[in-house]
Amino acid sequence: MPEPSPAASNLRIDGKRLWDALMAMAELGATPKGGVRRLTLTAVDKAGRDRFRGWCEAAGLTVRVDAIGNMFARRDGRDPARPPVLMGSHLDSQPSGGKFDGALGVIAGLEVMRSLNDLGIITEAPIELVNWTDEEGSRFGNSLMGSGVWSGVYTQEAMEALTDPDGITAGAALDAIGYRGPEPARPFPADAYFELHIEQGPILEREAKTIGIVTGAQAQVWYDAVVTGQDSHAGTTPPSARRDALVAAARMIDLVDRMMRARGEDGRGTVGQLFVSPNSRNVIPGEVRFSVEFRHPDDAEIDRLAAQFPREAGFIARDSGVRLSLSQRLRNPAQPFDPECVDLVRKAASRLGYPAREIVSGAGHDAVYVARHVPTAMIFTPCKDGLSHNEAESIEPHEAEAGCQVLLEAVVARANQG
Amino acid sequence: MPEPSPAASNLRIDGKRLWDALMAMAELGATPKGGVRRLTLTAVDKAGRDRFRGWCEAAGLTVRVDAIGNMFARRDGRDPARPPVLMGSHLDSQPSGGKFDGALGVIAGLEVMRSLNDLGIITEAPIELVNWTDEEGSRFGNSLMGSGVWSGVYTQEAMEALTDPDGITAGAALDAIGYRGPEPARPFPADAYFELHIEQGPILEREAKTIGIVTGAQAQVWYDAVVTGQDSHAGTTPPSARRDALVAAARMIDLVDRMMRARGEDGRGTVGQLFVSPNSRNVIPGEVRFSVEFRHPDDAEIDRLAAQFPREAGFIARDSGVRLSLSQRLRNPAQPFDPECVDLVRKAASRLGYPAREIVSGAGHDAVYVARHVPTAMIFTPCKDGLSHNEAESIEPHEAEAGCQVLLEAVVARANQG
Repeated sequence: MPEPSPAASNLRIDGKRLWDALMAMAELGATPKGGVRRLTLTAVDKAGRDRFRGWCEAAGLTVRVDAIGNMFARRDGRDPARPPVLMGSHLDSQPSGGKFDGALGVIAGLEVMRSLNDLGIITEAPIELVNWTDEEGSRFGNSLMGSGVWSGVYTQEAMEALTDPDGITAGAALDAIGYRGPEPARPFPADAYFELHIEQGPILEREAKTIGIVTGAQAQVWYDAVVTGQDSHAGTTPPSARRDALVAAARMIDLVDRMMRARGEDGRGTVGQLFVSPNSRNVIPGEVRFSVEFRHPDDAEIDRLAAQFPREAGFIARDSGVRLSLSQRLRNPAQPFDPECVDLVRKAASRLGYPAREIVSGAGHDAVYVARHVPTAMIFTPCKDGLSHNEAESIEPHEAEAGCQVLLEAVVARANQG
Repeated sequence: MPEPSPAASNLRIDGKRLWDALMAMAELGATPKGGVRRLTLTAVDKAGRDRFRGWCEAAGLTVRVDAIGNMFARRDGRDPARPPVLMGSHLDSQPSGGKFDGALGVIAGLEVMRSLNDLGIITEAPIELVNWTDEEGSRFGNSLMGSGVWSGVYTQEAMEALTDPDGITAGAALDAIGYRGPEPARPFPADAYFELHIEQGPILEREAKTIGIVTGAQAQVWYDAVVTGQDSHAGTTPPSARRDALVAAARMIDLVDRMMRARGEDGRGTVGQLFVSPNSRNVIPGEVRFSVEFRHPDDAEIDRLAAQFPREAGFIARDSGVRLSLSQRLRNPAQPFDPECVDLVRKAASRLGYPAREIVSGAGHDAVYVARHVPTAMIFTPCKDGLSHNEAESIEPHEAEAGCQVLLEAVVARANQG
């Protein structure tokens, strides 16, 4: 029988080993500008998965893969009857992504496992480290694929049928890299889920906080907008005869920004994607398609935004002599995290003396879907200038170490809870 | 010796023959949606030129071609010492163009020649019908190529070196279709130039005018704008940390529209082309590139717009926390047409009893460059819904006939002037 476990507060992760593993993972898909391009279910993603699996097996973990390619690396606990404590994130990246978005949570989980091995610790409950498939959605157009299927948000069939720009289905891509596992992707009994992730925003850095205690995820509403006017000659069409789709769209973009700012610092409102047609210098635009998204920690504010935006955008369309077609593409309520799990994160940060603050996740994360079935919390660490989804994404080794240390303490505390 | 010429007012063109020839020309490059795709210096353009040349030669005209492919079909006058009266337009089209943009002026000129033949008229001065090369600029990216080289705005060498998207130079394309003529393209002594064209705008139709007496062309100033902010995550970046290039660009688009409307019905201000980067739904745009153009009949207004726009757009950039780089891409002064030539058009329309109004050309035309060397006027006819550069471009046979009749009378009056 192994030694009794020491108190979590005596455990220390190896910051250098963590950083070296992060850098070794970042070699796979490394871009000339210092970022990473490891699109889901590609040969590069397979190389990342293979390297991760090798590390896990060398650490004595048992790796299994489910039908959507989610990887679970298990370290047994003292009591095989207890459901596992999960931790993890994702190894896939944006097309021009950084080294840490996703990878930090997975590699930090690996470092937790290695540290437990070093110290000869056996936790009461088993611990499982997860690499969720296709968090980014960059290749098949649907983010959170792996955790979404696992959580029952999406069906396996619908996700497999999605195609990338070359017409390759996600199902074929799964088979091509050999990561379609035998067990269905669905929730199994689990005691908790902890995910460490970079903030992907500027708040922690600006306030000089090392740890973000994530209390939940924002509510969101997304729209696809199509403004239809009339394309006509820029030189010959007088003001009174114009039905300029881009001028109307511009006023709606300004509206989104004003509606966001009216909500203060918790508001989010963005037009990120926009296409002009015919997009010719001397032709008044006849059609503009664009995305709109609002996010807010409070469901009631999203309800208000979702009532106000279509109405006010409609007024702009009417006043501009164009047609607006608005379809709601996504609406997610706020997802509060589990108070007990959040409290384990809070206590770990406090015990370790890290400057910390509570924060609501602005981005989507696998944790948001997992939280529908499993008590969940997240830990944020700062990233330079708040940059993410960018090759310039950057964090400091001591920040990675702090996040990993908090993860370790929260996971071990949960796994050893009576 | 032929009979003395009757007064121009007794001459009648053959409306049915005109329309039939327009439809016959529109067969070459006909698109399924009823438009025309006859890109300059392609095999289809060659087919149009060959058909045109055949018609001209059958009408007894002498066709010569200059070094940039401009075609001149000459009908001798009584006095060989007199410089010719020119008329014409262009046979090339936009990629998804209509049947009448350009073709109307060339085919109507042919009908003028045929009518003079029918009636046995010999004018005092010779008359030459011109088909200018590459008015549209769609293939090599430089509009008004043929009239521009002829007028000395562009050099033959610079134009020949332009390439199409397949890397074919305009020079090679000229040779490939066999339309590089022996004589240099440069102004030769000419008495006048008349161009009949569809309005490509809605004004004549809206006011139920059959004839536009074109008094000149607008002044123009064009810009390329680049707004640089910072791309960042749409969910995690709070309002105070945003430097959204698209929000700033949207306010500049609204500014362009407001500056246009402040000039009343003569103002033109358009953002026709816009590209967002990275153009991803959940990323705040870091860069937006767009075109800006202003047009106005009055040079002084263009001067004011060119002073005001960079200043006010700069204020928007500053207030939005982004950088604006603005480069002036083109600046053309207003080009007034020749008062005597314009008066010949006015008198013809009046004598024929056509509802007419004076109008300033909003679009660029070969006539604008020719006017730098030769007394020039243009005649506009309405087009349905003001639509042009569009397969749905449409005119009525009686409108084509009216324009052609005015062209005939103006040209004959000029050619017979004492």
